Amino acid sequence: LPIAFDAIATGETSMYPLPDGMFAPQNQWYVAALSSEVTRQPMERWILNEPVALYRKTDGSAVAMQGRCPHRHFPLGKSNVVGDNIECGYHGLQFRPDGSGDSSPAQKTVPASCRVKVFPLVERWKWLWIWPGNPALADPSLIPDHDEFGLLNGSFVLCGDIAYNEVPARYMLIHDNLFDLTHLNVLHRNSIGGGNLAETKEQRNLTENRLTSHRHFRDLAPPPFMGPVLGYNGLCDRDMKITFCFPGLHYFFDTYSKASGEPGGGEHLGAIMGFHCVTPATHHTSHYFAALLRDFARDDAALGQHIASGLAPTLQEDIFATGEIEKTASRLSRLPAEILLNSDTTCGLGRRMFAQAIGKEMAV
Amino acid sequence: LPIAFDAIATGETSMYPLPDGMFAPQNQWYVAALSSEVTRQPMERWILNEPVALYRKTDGSAVAMQGRCPHRHFPLGKSNVVGDNIECGYHGLQFRPDGSGDSSPAQKTVPASCRVKVFPLVERWKWLWIWPGNPALADPSLIPDHDEFGLLNGSFVLCGDIAYNEVPARYMLIHDNLFDLTHLNVLHRNSIGGGNLAETKEQRNLTENRLTSHRHFRDLAPPPFMGPVLGYNGLCDRDMKITFCFPGLHYFFDTYSKASGEPGGGEHLGAIMGFHCVTPATHHTSHYFAALLRDFARDDAALGQHIASGLAPTLQEDIFATGEIEKTASRLSRLPAEILLNSDTTCGLGRRMFAQAIGKEMAV
Amino acid sequence: LPIAFDAIATGETSMYPLPDGMFAPQNQWYVAALSSEVTRQPMERWILNEPVALYRKTDGSAVAMQGRCPHRHFPLGKSNVVGDNIECGYHGLQFRPDGSGDSSPAQKTVPASCRVKVFPLVERWKWLWIWPGNPALADPSLIPDHDEFGLLNGSFVLCGDIAYNEVPARYMLIHDNLFDLTHLNVLHRNSIGGGNLAETKEQRNLTENRLTSHRHFRDLAPPPFMGPVLGYNGLCDRDMKITFCFPGLHYFFDTYSKASGEPGGGEHLGAIMGFHCVTPATHHTSHYFAALLRDFARDDAALGQHIASGLAPTLQEDIFATGEIEKTASRLSRLPAEILLNSDTTCGLGRRMFAQAIGKEMAV
Repeated sequence: LPIAFDAIATGETSMYPLPDGMFAPQNQWYVAALSSEVTRQPMERWILNEPVALYRKTDGSAVAMQGRCPHRHFPLGKSNVVGDNIECGYHGLQFRPDGSGDSSPAQKTVPASCRVKVFPLVERWKWLWIWPGNPALADPSLIPDHDEFGLLNGSFVLCGDIAYNEVPARYMLIHDNLFDLTHLNVLHRNSIGGGNLAETKEQRNLTENRLTSHRHFRDLAPPPFMGPVLGYNGLCDRDMKITFCFPGLHYFFDTYSKASGEPGGGEHLGAIMGFHCVTPATHHTSHYFAALLRDFARDDAALGQHIASGLAPTLQEDIFATGEIEKTASRLSRLPAEILLNSDTTCGLGRRMFAQAIGKEMAV
Repeated sequence: LPIAFDAIATGETSMYPLPDGMFAPQNQWYVAALSSEVTRQPMERWILNEPVALYRKTDGSAVAMQGRCPHRHFPLGKSNVVGDNIECGYHGLQFRPDGSGDSSPAQKTVPASCRVKVFPLVERWKWLWIWPGNPALADPSLIPDHDEFGLLNGSFVLCGDIAYNEVPARYMLIHDNLFDLTHLNVLHRNSIGGGNLAETKEQRNLTENRLTSHRHFRDLAPPPFMGPVLGYNGLCDRDMKITFCFPGLHYFFDTYSKASGEPGGGEHLGAIMGFHCVTPATHHTSHYFAALLRDFARDDAALGQHIASGLAPTLQEDIFATGEIEKTASRLSRLPAEILLNSDTTCGLGRRMFAQAIGKEMAV
Repeated sequence: LPIAFDAIATGETSMYPLPDGMFAPQNQWYVAALSSEVTRQPMERWILNEPVALYRKTDGSAVAMQGRCPHRHFPLGKSNVVGDNIECGYHGLQFRPDGSGDSSPAQKTVPASCRVKVFPLVERWKWLWIWPGNPALADPSLIPDHDEFGLLNGSFVLCGDIAYNEVPARYMLIHDNLFDLTHLNVLHRNSIGGGNLAETKEQRNLTENRLTSHRHFRDLAPPPFMGPVLGYNGLCDRDMKITFCFPGLHYFFDTYSKASGEPGGGEHLGAIMGFHCVTPATHHTSHYFAALLRDFARDDAALGQHIASGLAPTLQEDIFATGEIEKTASRLSRLPAEILLNSDTTCGLGRRMFAQAIGKEMAV
């Protein structure tokens, strides 16, 4: 039965929907950037409310360094790369990829205390994963397994490019959006809605760092966008499974087959796979990376581009919704407790994963 | 004698010129919108720092509903109307015009706790009046009587359209502006100034919810804008009476007649009537509705348009002045106590109406 | 040896790099405006987080008056001048140049309490100097002596106009920039860098209100921009001396001569003189006036314009750097203590001048 969500929504807006004083777990892997974004020219990206400088060394490997020079706080992400070092664009202090200070033409004498934090960074598939917390705890085996979700075996191919958006909303609002797919039939009613999500049994599975939501629909008309893409207008079965890899990646499989009562019933029509990577930027903004893949017409790049551009507005609808909620939460001094629906169970579990992990870090 | 206005200006800027901690009286009628603004497509309007959704039912009657879905805080004013219900644009919760939740295609099961506040709303003349506070106290007979100020008897006709502006200033600064008409000769010197306002005896009348200021000028040259409009360049008498209907409406009569020493002395030249409706939006912004009417050349729509467009800059001057004061009040950590002039007596009385009403609500 | 700069950088961002609660010394002379900016039309300028109205009387002398009318806080800097008085643009209160209220057409009766603060203001060379603090302490002999830095004897002439910028950074970040010239070789590497600043002996001289930094370089290639300007491509000696006149003016001499090993060794090639005047505007913005002069080709206005426009990007680089640091300091709840380099000694002394002066004013 629905209950007021008091344990989570405490009436303070600061980091709604998390309990007061909580922001984000630090000892975790997050997507910092697309591989293609990081070059020899350093870039600045705020991650968990700290500036980070990202660049590549001469051997092509990527570095994530504290983005604030410890001397005068100038942004290293708006500075220069010299060899494998980053050189502060203000007074010329140089830092090696391990964070230690290096003598430079402008600053020959560098004190031992002059060093910056370097973040563990791992490049996988097309993404760079960063560990904002204690480097000693950074275990690359904790990065979501790209084999697990089939990125490396070629059965799915990308539709167009991976989208990057800086979203004007706190990161938890994006997770809320992805934890509760009943929004598909309303916010995205004209594109990928279909099937009565709220009334269809939702199977959940929660492990330490995975939360899965699974629904199966029978005898549906294909969603407005998908019919033409699949080249099929009969009734279909739709299998919708989304897995959250705590704390920053959701991947889903949206699989269509001919309904059993149709000619060729049970025949696989095609599946869309998607990734949503969410990384806290500041307290009120987020990095949002989204990719779509398909397992059909894999050589048809034009179709891939059609899917990517056709579903781009869907992502913008999510960004609109979370941005609007951010505006309200920021403007009101007090957000009342929420109403909880049956369909919020997954969301409640997901929020609890964050609250527990942050709570553990705060208790240390 | 002028005294420092310490009782009102407490040195805190938060809600200058009100005492600390006061914002706005809630158990009152305010203009929420022009009738013409509210349609079947819902609109969002912040009122007393809360989002409100306004829309019309199939029978044309208007509804003012809490503008924030109680489930995930998505703006209902940026959602959809379905029949007489509003359907949240995020997860599809529907709310009936009485605020109760309704089952919907997207959300068949709706908990009883899922309801939104509905605001008493009354449509009068061309305006929608909202009661942001306790609905049980909302007595429509408290709405300013439109017969009282002649809106319904046809003796005055509108000049052009009613203007709506969202003003970047707290609402009390707009009331301050209207309580003290000595600004006409300075801020509006090139349009409607005329007569020595500060030196002319001001008759005041204060009742529980009305405050009237009345001045009569003899043997004036018509104000720069009015001479040509009235087609008269001789000396005139001017009668200026402005009535404040607590807490949100001011109406004035600005009446011109030939001066007694002129040929045809005493003959009525014409009167301009005006309405200014002020509604608190957020703590630092306001809704400002303004209308002008005339009792002469009532069939001359072109003249009406000429008056409306000719006096539009006057309203912008008021918006400029209040916006500038808002900027200063917001930027300074402490506003010094004000100097009080003789001409501020009306303003002092008007401020006190607010402080007393808010104080009563806070005491409950 | 470098030490953590704990005494200054306390971990609070509010007014980094000053100790908590400190903003700016008030009993000091600051440049309020260029002489050419102040006319019969009043202008508004925020100085030390207070609005100031600047205008000229009929005799041409300039007045700096509290920029906020004491009646309703309307900006006097956006009002009107009537004779020698300023007339508030809202209700017409007039103030004489001594700050006392004057009767006016709109307000004949003015209470004695109706007066505004008037700031001591002195016009020197092309600048207006304001004293924001206690007028009784305003001694014009404390204004930096324009003879001392050669502005009045004609040996230097202006290159183009004096630049004015409102900088989106707290004023101390601009002083930090000027106290530590090692940034020339990095931030300005393509224009006026040259000589190993960090490794070259820096002679400092600190008196009560002067702080001088002096470096002499031998056998340098001229900086990229200066070679062509001086018409010389051989090795040169460079003498760089910058003097800070507490609390708002820096002047430098950047003098070039032929290196002793070159033909004509020791011959004076030319000197650039510069002024940087920094005045706190709000807590997060500053007024920045910058002038360049030359002692060579004094009749060549085109060369002067070439120098001015050629070095304009250099000033924008400083504005960029300080603006970036302001963004970081404003966004982070806590700025870690800084690393201190050998080359920061001058900066440390300069910061201490401010902390001591502000501390003295706070102790009164």
